[in-house]
Amino acid sequence: MTSKQGLLLVISGCAGTGKGTVIAALQSAYPDDFAYSVSATTRPPRPGEVDHTHYHFLTREAFEDAILHAQMLEYTEYCGNLYGTPKSELIKTESGRHLILEIEVEGARNIKRLYPDAVSVFIAPPDPLTLEKRLRGRGTNTDEDIRNRMRTARAELASIADYDYVVVNEDDGAEEAAMQIMRILRAEQSRTARCAALIADLTAT
Amino acid sequence: MTSKQGLLLVISGCAGTGKGTVIAALQSAYPDDFAYSVSATTRPPRPGEVDHTHYHFLTREAFEDAILHAQMLEYTEYCGNLYGTPKSELIKTESGRHLILEIEVEGARNIKRLYPDAVSVFIAPPDPLTLEKRLRGRGTNTDEDIRNRMRTARAELASIADYDYVVVNEDDGAEEAAMQIMRILRAEQSRTARCAALIADLTAT
Repeated sequence: MTSKQGLLLVISGCAGTGKGTVIAALQSAYPDDFAYSVSATTRPPRPGEVDHTHYHFLTREAFEDAILHAQMLEYTEYCGNLYGTPKSELIKTESGRHLILEIEVEGARNIKRLYPDAVSVFIAPPDPLTLEKRLRGRGTNTDEDIRNRMRTARAELASIADYDYVVVNEDDGAEEAAMQIMRILRAEQSRTARCAALIADLTAT
Repeated sequence: MTSKQGLLLVISGCAGTGKGTVIAALQSAYPDDFAYSVSATTRPPRPGEVDHTHYHFLTREAFEDAILHAQMLEYTEYCGNLYGTPKSELIKTESGRHLILEIEVEGARNIKRLYPDAVSVFIAPPDPLTLEKRLRGRGTNTDEDIRNRMRTARAELASIADYDYVVVNEDDGAEEAAMQIMRILRAEQSRTARCAALIADLTAT
C-alpha cells in the first residue's frame, strides 16, 4: 500500500525482551516497508563513516540550535556527545515507508507529545519469570546485578500504559512479534483519522 | 489467540460498497474467529425457527422492558416489529471470538456511546465514480432512483469520521478487505488499553 503515507513507529522494551531481535526480524521480513532513519550526532566521524549516510554529523552548536528550534524529534547525551533524530527524517515516510525509532521510555513519551501521529509499541516479555530467566541467561552476572536489572526492567514496564500497543515476545517468538507489529502498522493506516484525503474524496459533492 | 477476549465489531457501509460480500468473505476466511450474534425480535417465529437459535423471540412488553433497562445494544423498528441485539450476546466474546454487528450509521453511533470498547469499521467504495457505477449496475433503476441512492449514500459517507477505521472495498476486493478487517481486530487486541491483565502481571512486584 505505497499510496498511503508511512508511519513513525516508536519501539521500546526493557532489557530481556528481545527488542533488538524483533526489530531485526521486522526489517528482514518486510524490507520494502521500512525506511532507514539516520541519526544526528556531535561525535566526530570514525574512519569510513559518511555524513548523511551513517550519521548527520553536526557541531554541538548546530545540534543545540536544532534542539532550540524544535528540529529534533528526540535526543540524548551519551559519553559527552549528543545523539538524536532530526524531524526532517520524517519526510521519508512520504514514500509510504515506515520509520522505526528504537528509543527508551522517556524519549518515547516526548515523541508522542511532539508528534501524536506516531505509533508506539512496547515489546514485553510474556511474564516476569521469563524476564528474570532471560536476564540471568545473559551471562555471568551476580545475583545483585540481576536484582538491579530486574528493578530497572520493572520501572520501564511501569510505563507500558503510555504506549499505544504492547506486543509480547515469546521465547523464539521474534517472527510472530514482527508479524504482529506489521499488522498494527497496516491497521493504523486504515484509521479514519489517517484517511482524511480518502474521506474528502468520497464526500465531495 | 483464544486467550484474548474477542471484540465487538461494528460494520457499516452505504449501499454500493459491497458490505455484505466483505462480511461473508470475513466469516468464510476466518470461521473460528467469529461467534454468531443472535438478534432479539418481537415478530412471531416462522415455521422451523427455533427460539435462541434463529432469534430470541420476545413479547413487545419484554422487548420494551429490555430497552428500558439498557439491555439492548441497539434496536430498530421495522414493519411494526422490534429487532435488536441483546447486550447479553457480548458474553460470546469471552471465548475469544469476535462478534459482528452489521448496522446503519445511527445505530453504530449509539453502540460506540454505550460500549466504547467496540471496534467500528466503515466499508467504503474506492471513489465516488465507482460508487455510482455500482449503484447503477444493480439493475433497472431510473436516473432519479440512482440520484436518490447517491444522495443517501453521500449522507452515510458523511459519517465516516465517526468510525474508528475505514476499509476500502475495491472491485473484486472483498477478500483483501476481509483480510484488512482481520488485521485491524488482531492489532486492536494488542492495544495497551485492552491488555490490563498482562500489564498487571508484568508490573506485579
